[in-house]
Amino acid sequence: MARTDLPRPTEDELIARYFAPLAGAGGLSLRDDAAVLTPSPGHDLVLTTDAVVAGVHYYPDDPPSSIACKALGVNLSDLAAKGAEPRGFLLTLALSDDWDEAWLAEFCTGLSEAAALASCPLLGGDTVRAAGPTLVGITALGEVPSGTMVRRGTARVGDRLLVSGSIGDAAFGLKLRQKPAAPWGEALSFPVRTALVDRYLHPQARLALAPALRAHARAAMDVSDGLVGDLAKMMRAADLSAEVEIEAIPLSDAARAALAVKPALLDTALTGGDDYEILCAADPAEVPALQEAAGRAGVPLAEIGTVTEGSAPPVFRAADGSVRRFRSGSFSHF
Amino acid sequence: MARTDLPRPTEDELIARYFAPLAGAGGLSLRDDAAVLTPSPGHDLVLTTDAVVAGVHYYPDDPPSSIACKALGVNLSDLAAKGAEPRGFLLTLALSDDWDEAWLAEFCTGLSEAAALASCPLLGGDTVRAAGPTLVGITALGEVPSGTMVRRGTARVGDRLLVSGSIGDAAFGLKLRQKPAAPWGEALSFPVRTALVDRYLHPQARLALAPALRAHARAAMDVSDGLVGDLAKMMRAADLSAEVEIEAIPLSDAARAALAVKPALLDTALTGGDDYEILCAADPAEVPALQEAAGRAGVPLAEIGTVTEGSAPPVFRAADGSVRRFRSGSFSHF
Repeated sequence: MARTDLPRPTEDELIARYFAPLAGAGGLSLRDDAAVLTPSPGHDLVLTTDAVVAGVHYYPDDPPSSIACKALGVNLSDLAAKGAEPRGFLLTLALSDDWDEAWLAEFCTGLSEAAALASCPLLGGDTVRAAGPTLVGITALGEVPSGTMVRRGTARVGDRLLVSGSIGDAAFGLKLRQKPAAPWGEALSFPVRTALVDRYLHPQARLALAPALRAHARAAMDVSDGLVGDLAKMMRAADLSAEVEIEAIPLSDAARAALAVKPALLDTALTGGDDYEILCAADPAEVPALQEAAGRAGVPLAEIGTVTEGSAPPVFRAADGSVRRFRSGSFSHF
Repeated sequence: MARTDLPRPTEDELIARYFAPLAGAGGLSLRDDAAVLTPSPGHDLVLTTDAVVAGVHYYPDDPPSSIACKALGVNLSDLAAKGAEPRGFLLTLALSDDWDEAWLAEFCTGLSEAAALASCPLLGGDTVRAAGPTLVGITALGEVPSGTMVRRGTARVGDRLLVSGSIGDAAFGLKLRQKPAAPWGEALSFPVRTALVDRYLHPQARLALAPALRAHARAAMDVSDGLVGDLAKMMRAADLSAEVEIEAIPLSDAARAALAVKPALLDTALTGGDDYEILCAADPAEVPALQEAAGRAGVPLAEIGTVTEGSAPPVFRAADGSVRRFRSGSFSHF
């Protein structure tokens, strides 16, 4: 109670204390009306914006540093999928009425770490108060050599489909966050539970994959709203369809442990969101070079299927040849 | 009531119906994860982000097209002050739970008109729902020839201070919006009232002034939080002070009519926000060329004072030589 009775710092004080230390050279210490950025000659800018809202995209009592990591991560994931290298970001922070400086300090520590890890400095921002949930909006800027941005809708029939890392961990982590006492969760070891929740709290954008995608992928997008729905979206953008072998979809040991306890969770793994992996399509002749480049970057990239003719939703085939249908393709707020 | 019972469109439907028509070429019809923008060779990017929140920056029942005009305008105003030409913007729209499609349609109409007027297309966006007030966050991108961005903190002792257009109209407009039956307001004619409220609802960024500022100004910022506070901010950034002649501060006929009824409103004019005019400092030798260029651009630019030594707050001098002090320098949310 005492804390909220203290005089609140002004917006300028907040900027100087918490945000200016995160500013890159172009951010001008956040003391001007705008930031300035000199684009690399011969490059295109890649621009993306995504917001996370308390109670919608994260739990209000998630650790503030995790919220910052997620807010930046979801944007960096879009840059990675487009083959772009980050140049910086701008932040819109709408603070709910009950914010305090301890929360903000932790948020900025997390943001600083995530930004440093991605070499993506803060360029500018706006902090406002809102009589509602906290909202963290980020606009991220990246660069690609001119004309090399990897598009979503450019897959061709016969292209192989690949997905990075592992799918479903974050969706399981969210389920554990929602219902810690679920029997399937209690059957898991502490390290397994921790690994799953960590994937939900701390998405790691696959920025290391960007050069490999530029060099060898025909199309790509990030998997943020569930593999099933996002693959459908990518195929719709190309006016094509796909066949996927469920067995080939990469799963972590932690996710396999959960599925061993409750096989029905497979639906959750494939339709749940927050994976922040990369889904891409590549000419079969490019797949070895793509996988080698991904391996050099330290990111596993698994072949899961093939792009096919037609405009039907992608077909997911089980090991016995049967076709699996999913109730809900992907997460939607509306 | 019937309206809210209808099935809500999905986020993809909203994008296709309302936002895609606003997208510039680089926005890729908003059907990819990111936008792509080819910077003009030999130019720097200028980046700014500002959000407006219902109940804080505007009235929830303001016309949706006005809210859109203001949300984009406050960002374009920052670009103008830096001498930048707009290239595009990204939108974060957090819709309160009671939004409806009629509101969104009107909002997008206003946004489309404001964007077209400024040659500043939509490049990307994110729409989320929030259990709180609607928030419109915009990140605007502009360009200047390399190294020519006009800075805030670079005024020098002896520079003349100039301000564009007229000061105080929007603050009076806000007062009329807050208290339509105030006696001073009722004493004004309908066209005068309308002109003042219009300045509050529809800020017009001084983009036409950008080339003149690049060519002839030493420092500039936009006046968004009140002339008194913003001048103090600009002088603090240069570690200098200023002397201003109150008589020289440009006032519209509408504002003069209001002041004739209630002279005490002068404080409101000089400390109230939402002017979105340009405050700049220029070498006295550059002032004639600056004013001529501004005149060619159709924007009046009035000399109001001089930059002085010291770090005291700027001095505002009345016609009789007395010094005027202001209770509150500028608007702050915190």
